[in-house]
Amino acid sequence: MVYESIDNKKIKDIKKLTQKKYRDKFNLFIVEGEHLVLEAYKKGVLKQLILEKDYILPLDVDTLYVTNNVLSYLSSLDTPGKVIGVVEKLENTNKLGDKILMLDNVQDPGNLGTIIRSAVAFNINTIVLGEGCVDLYNSKVIRASQGLLFHINIIESNLLELIPNLKEKEYTIIGTKVTFGKSLKSIDKFKKICIIMGNEGNGMSEEISELTDFNVYIDMNKDCESLNVGVAASIILYELDK
Amino acid sequence: MVYESIDNKKIKDIKKLTQKKYRDKFNLFIVEGEHLVLEAYKKGVLKQLILEKDYILPLDVDTLYVTNNVLSYLSSLDTPGKVIGVVEKLENTNKLGDKILMLDNVQDPGNLGTIIRSAVAFNINTIVLGEGCVDLYNSKVIRASQGLLFHINIIESNLLELIPNLKEKEYTIIGTKVTFGKSLKSIDKFKKICIIMGNEGNGMSEEISELTDFNVYIDMNKDCESLNVGVAASIILYELDK
Repeated sequence: MVYESIDNKKIKDIKKLTQKKYRDKFNLFIVEGEHLVLEAYKKGVLKQLILEKDYILPLDVDTLYVTNNVLSYLSSLDTPGKVIGVVEKLENTNKLGDKILMLDNVQDPGNLGTIIRSAVAFNINTIVLGEGCVDLYNSKVIRASQGLLFHINIIESNLLELIPNLKEKEYTIIGTKVTFGKSLKSIDKFKKICIIMGNEGNGMSEEISELTDFNVYIDMNKDCESLNVGVAASIILYELDK
Repeated sequence: MVYESIDNKKIKDIKKLTQKKYRDKFNLFIVEGEHLVLEAYKKGVLKQLILEKDYILPLDVDTLYVTNNVLSYLSSLDTPGKVIGVVEKLENTNKLGDKILMLDNVQDPGNLGTIIRSAVAFNINTIVLGEGCVDLYNSKVIRASQGLLFHINIIESNLLELIPNLKEKEYTIIGTKVTFGKSLKSIDKFKKICIIMGNEGNGMSEEISELTDFNVYIDMNKDCESLNVGVAASIILYELDK
């Protein structure tokens, strides 16, 4: 059968997942496009596939065929594609690894997506989202991450509690400030590191700043006051991955 | 007087500048927010100031006071601010300097804005926009650049004609590919360089690729196929600025 009506209960239930409260309630989220759907399928977390009625994508999962009208209703895109997936939220692990990236109040979904992509590129083991960060399952985050959220451990945590814990385990806690601390080019290698990136406008919160071992900054021309946080994180992760 | 109607000719003429064809015709563009307006003013290119009727910003320039309704009409933002500037397009120079960044078909306005910001940060002298790039005066480009378009020479040019010209002047032409060429970490210093970044989906065009001296790539984890072009450009410019 082909689902033609946006009033159908199944369709309405999927639509609910565009809201955080329902994503949290059902432990599900939506991805759009064949690339992301296949990433979720390979990871074993694709629960339901929604296809434009004539589209062919034979996956071993509950599949609903729908009209373009229904796709438009479910999609967060101006130009909806033909493939949507309902995906189980990621099961993450408390084994954090030796390279942790902590985000303090990063609010822009595009920035979080970019940071996830760069964190995978530069071999971060775990991303820790502190309170105040944009929801990981926001459609723009998922799109900007290019599906790389399926390739890295991401947890939510209270940073003020976690940092002292990491210090006991001999992590070096590296904060980031625009102009204060050590030049990124000058810092040594550490076996276990935790890098903290702060909010787009205000940087790291004061309480978090007080817990760092030192801060790094990126040398740059004085005409440029600061870099986009996604760019700054990417440069720092690149440099520390050498 | 306070302009209250969006049917007023002056207001309608400003609104036209949200379209590229009128920006080109009148050689003007719009910036939003006090920060960008002040950047334009310092640069001497602010032609007209549009303020919410009770807002105070005493600049020595033709000023129109308008209602919030008119501001909403003129603004490209979901939540319009209280300050808009009409700005003369940048007068750029053919003195390109020793460090050039060339963009081949970069289409996303956020990416171009980010790249402008990073180019200023890492001491690029000139950005060359090839055909197919998003319009520099697109509101999203301006916003993402954080006003740094006023701090760097930006020209439009035919890259296929300009590159051979630069080669004659002993520039080293460095292309970028995701996985092919020299590792960014391994490349030498050159006195005069031109770095080329390509399109978001397809990279550099084939004709451009054939003109490079060599390509660089950024070492990364194999799970990550590529980086966002704004991020990749920023890392390359950071590394080459050392």
